[in-house]
Amino acid sequence: MDYGKEAMKMHEKYRGKIEVCSKVPLKTREDLSTAYTPGVASPCMEIHKDEKKAYSYTAKGNLVAVVTDGTAVLGLGDIGPKAAMPVMEGKAILFKEFGGVDAFPICLDTKDTEEIIETVKRIAPCFGGINLEDICSPKCFEIEQRLEQELDIPVFHDDQHGTAIVTTAALMNALKVVGKKIEDVKVVLNGPGSAGTAIAKMMLHAGVKHMTICDLEGILAEGCPFAVGHKLELARLTNPEGITGTLKDAIVGADVFVGVSAGNILTKEMVRTMAPDPVVFAMANPTPEITYEDAVEAGVKVMGTGRSDYPNQINNVLAFPGLFRGALDAGARDINYDMKLAAARAIASLVTDEELKPEYIIPSPFDPRVAAKVAEEVAKCTHMSVF
Amino acid sequence: MDYGKEAMKMHEKYRGKIEVCSKVPLKTREDLSTAYTPGVASPCMEIHKDEKKAYSYTAKGNLVAVVTDGTAVLGLGDIGPKAAMPVMEGKAILFKEFGGVDAFPICLDTKDTEEIIETVKRIAPCFGGINLEDICSPKCFEIEQRLEQELDIPVFHDDQHGTAIVTTAALMNALKVVGKKIEDVKVVLNGPGSAGTAIAKMMLHAGVKHMTICDLEGILAEGCPFAVGHKLELARLTNPEGITGTLKDAIVGADVFVGVSAGNILTKEMVRTMAPDPVVFAMANPTPEITYEDAVEAGVKVMGTGRSDYPNQINNVLAFPGLFRGALDAGARDINYDMKLAAARAIASLVTDEELKPEYIIPSPFDPRVAAKVAEEVAKCTHMSVF
Repeated sequence: MDYGKEAMKMHEKYRGKIEVCSKVPLKTREDLSTAYTPGVASPCMEIHKDEKKAYSYTAKGNLVAVVTDGTAVLGLGDIGPKAAMPVMEGKAILFKEFGGVDAFPICLDTKDTEEIIETVKRIAPCFGGINLEDICSPKCFEIEQRLEQELDIPVFHDDQHGTAIVTTAALMNALKVVGKKIEDVKVVLNGPGSAGTAIAKMMLHAGVKHMTICDLEGILAEGCPFAVGHKLELARLTNPEGITGTLKDAIVGADVFVGVSAGNILTKEMVRTMAPDPVVFAMANPTPEITYEDAVEAGVKVMGTGRSDYPNQINNVLAFPGLFRGALDAGARDINYDMKLAAARAIASLVTDEELKPEYIIPSPFDPRVAAKVAEEVAKCTHMSVF
Repeated sequence: MDYGKEAMKMHEKYRGKIEVCSKVPLKTREDLSTAYTPGVASPCMEIHKDEKKAYSYTAKGNLVAVVTDGTAVLGLGDIGPKAAMPVMEGKAILFKEFGGVDAFPICLDTKDTEEIIETVKRIAPCFGGINLEDICSPKCFEIEQRLEQELDIPVFHDDQHGTAIVTTAALMNALKVVGKKIEDVKVVLNGPGSAGTAIAKMMLHAGVKHMTICDLEGILAEGCPFAVGHKLELARLTNPEGITGTLKDAIVGADVFVGVSAGNILTKEMVRTMAPDPVVFAMANPTPEITYEDAVEAGVKVMGTGRSDYPNQINNVLAFPGLFRGALDAGARDINYDMKLAAARAIASLVTDEELKPEYIIPSPFDPRVAAKVAEEVAKCTHMSVF
């Protein structure tokens, strides 16, 4: 199926994918006087007296802004805010379909870090959460961190943490398949961009002790010339032995390869130098770091990709709808690491020991239990609530 | 019926009034691959090549931001952006119900003129129009004017122009009832705030030659100490004889009184000094400038108010849904005076000569012909189109 062609037809037919609908009837003068003036003055004044009431009387508590500046859209790069809109609308409808969350695209006509932060803060009053999307690295780190500090609603950069949650869930179950413990395995991560950085940090939180990160320029180590900014932070958290070289050197003896980089950079020869029963998550899209066929031929035991046409698709949609559902239900003021780890465990838990096999380590995005289970577990881990 | 109580029940039950829905199916992997990745990359790249295609492949062309800073909400004053949300959601659902326009509330956490302008400009890429709402006077004038100049989508301050359009429609038909010509009548307008200013300008555009405007401090005249800013502009456009005094002086011999001020400021005695067959639009809400009963007793021939429980409700919902429908359908880059006058004439035209009587000069908001007729006439008057 030519999805590009189908997508052109669909987008032209519907002129976009979202619409803003009423939840209340508006057919009579009485409806109008209740939903609008004069009746509407009453909930307005209740909120004016106590701002928290916005969660009771307005859409705020179920409303998430999907915010982008269009600088890192899919693998297409800096295509601008208008061209980013189809992706943001897509995200919005996934939020609704899978999590019952009302999400609305905000495509910003600025690429400036301070202006993005300022603008999101100014439009925040009517939203219950902020989902940052397709904002390029490294500014995405500062934008997320500052907004987390300065807003009293959850802020989540899905390209980072959504990917990290699902990859960590996949890791948990892959290690069960190969019979290895998380604290023992050696993980090599290639591509410390926004997703790679979050995956690295989350896997460390989840118990990984031996991690090496490779960039285009080689293995990250404290003191090496390209370990600056967020990469310096990663260098300090990983590679305790201070090894140097390239991916080819790092991969020797590794149990797990995590690629969020570029197509075809992991060769069969490299895979053959990995530890027995290697696990490979090759998530570059649409061309993975190694093809499924090559990976299998080279002896990979568990293979995951970002693609829907191979087993074990590592797909953010498993995480963000349920995560926000749980955070909103709990009135969470932020999304902490416990919530993210709970989401990863919830996703992993939906594949039973009986079902678990190399070709089935994570549930399908269409498994209706996923968002509900994620939401339930995330809500339990909320520490700070507006309620 | 206690609409306040009903409104509390409704708002609590539904937790707000809007939701964001999908227009496309999302039930299978194929749906997901068409609405989202990988298919979505195709419309993204088409828009990247030609920004105008955003109108074909995204929701932009039917999406209006309802923007407020919460400084002049209904008659409640400066209650803030969160407390303004129920009104903005109400506006959004009226847009959808009456005009088929997808409208979304943007409640801003700033009251600063420059910051409001800047923020609206930054979020504009995904919207096809901007509806400013409940922003206090006089800053609303500058915000609207600057955004009109600096954005390539229509910008409309409904409190000003929506009210002006419907009041002008009412004037057109009221003058038919009393058999007077617009160029002959003497109009007295009380309350040159945002609505009053727009009504004055629009009535002058529509052909009124004799207008006097009163403020709390008296009759506006060039050179008087309170004629500053937008009031100086109004003073220059009106009161050619340069009369001075108060409303009591201005009203003598007037054919039409237009009140957008405060309750109970027009007495029966004042009405009795007006010209024969006086027309009174007493639109202060909920308490009009003179009660319907007092007006009738004092000899008012045609009376209009802002209330739904008396004849001739002058209700913005007659204008803004059809106006934006027409502007969006035509790809209008702005909303010019011809479009506003066309909207007024369209509304007035829906009351036939046979139906026309003192108690029925404007159609009901629930008359399904209104928005369609307004949209049709407005679209014809679009001079600058994005298409």
